[in-house]
Amino acid sequence: MKRSLGAKTLAYPTPAWVIGSYDEQGKPNAMVSAWAGICCSQPPCVAVSMRKATYTHGNLMKRRAFTVNVPSQAQVKETDYIGLVSGRDTNKFAATGLTPVRSNLVDAPYIQEFPLILECEIVEVIELGLHTQFVGKIIDVKADEEVLNAAGSPDILKVLPILYSPGDRAYYGVGESLGSAFSIGKEI
Amino acid sequence: MKRSLGAKTLAYPTPAWVIGSYDEQGKPNAMVSAWAGICCSQPPCVAVSMRKATYTHGNLMKRRAFTVNVPSQAQVKETDYIGLVSGRDTNKFAATGLTPVRSNLVDAPYIQEFPLILECEIVEVIELGLHTQFVGKIIDVKADEEVLNAAGSPDILKVLPILYSPGDRAYYGVGESLGSAFSIGKEI
Repeated sequence: MKRSLGAKTLAYPTPAWVIGSYDEQGKPNAMVSAWAGICCSQPPCVAVSMRKATYTHGNLMKRRAFTVNVPSQAQVKETDYIGLVSGRDTNKFAATGLTPVRSNLVDAPYIQEFPLILECEIVEVIELGLHTQFVGKIIDVKADEEVLNAAGSPDILKVLPILYSPGDRAYYGVGESLGSAFSIGKEI
Repeated sequence: MKRSLGAKTLAYPTPAWVIGSYDEQGKPNAMVSAWAGICCSQPPCVAVSMRKATYTHGNLMKRRAFTVNVPSQAQVKETDYIGLVSGRDTNKFAATGLTPVRSNLVDAPYIQEFPLILECEIVEVIELGLHTQFVGKIIDVKADEEVLNAAGSPDILKVLPILYSPGDRAYYGVGESLGSAFSIGKEI
């Protein structure tokens, strides 16, 4: 029996990604976005949504670039802190000890300590209501050597990304493998 | 040391969501989308991307509605099967034994056996390249009574949604709790 819960943003899983940007003066900032996801394979694109009230929103409108920084679960406190304060009055990098690195490809900083980074140029800005969706073309992906598998691809069980659960406003880790895609369904 | 991996859709986690739709003749169809995410809080909206070549793409262009059906990890084989075949020549519901239920709110079917459902009306169609992004306004969320917590909200550890990992094209479960959002960062 299904119960109706109303018009709410209750979908699982959502990511806990940290968006890197520069403000007009070149100060690096970071914010957390869970309203985000890959949205196109060719060109490779990722979408991130944020409220107009955020400091990062203004940065993205001016700089037309951002990074998606995927934190590992050991960095969950730093990630949550980034979502608790505003870059308007706080230098989140100084407070957390995280290091902003200037991308040589896009006009945005990435976070050195996070294992997986997407460097993006904004190609679409879509006003949806409270949130603006920024679609970024992925110019490059950078990953720590330690999280790569033998094929040179990031291993999710080494990256250990963080999930955000809107239902209880809490973070979760990645669990066990459930099988190979485009494969286990053949048993049906 | 970070290694450059090129312009690829490597971001973790992404969801494994099943999109429900009707074709012109009223035949229900289902497809899997990992290129998807919540994109606005007010109005509540979810974005799902798909290639123009998919049968569901045509359905959404005509019906202007879809459902997001969140499978539980016990349904991973059915979910993968849905991504292996096309609704053009297969009745995926008959093949999997899953039951399409007509939504009384939007012109799309949902999957009775999946624990969490979002019923959506399309408000934006954005051509990004290989993929088209459909933004759906969430009209209602429906959940099985068994997956609700004491507050009446879906419990992620009861829903047990599936993660898709683009790096190794594999599915993963949800892991342990890492703490409360807007809270654990205060320790920084």
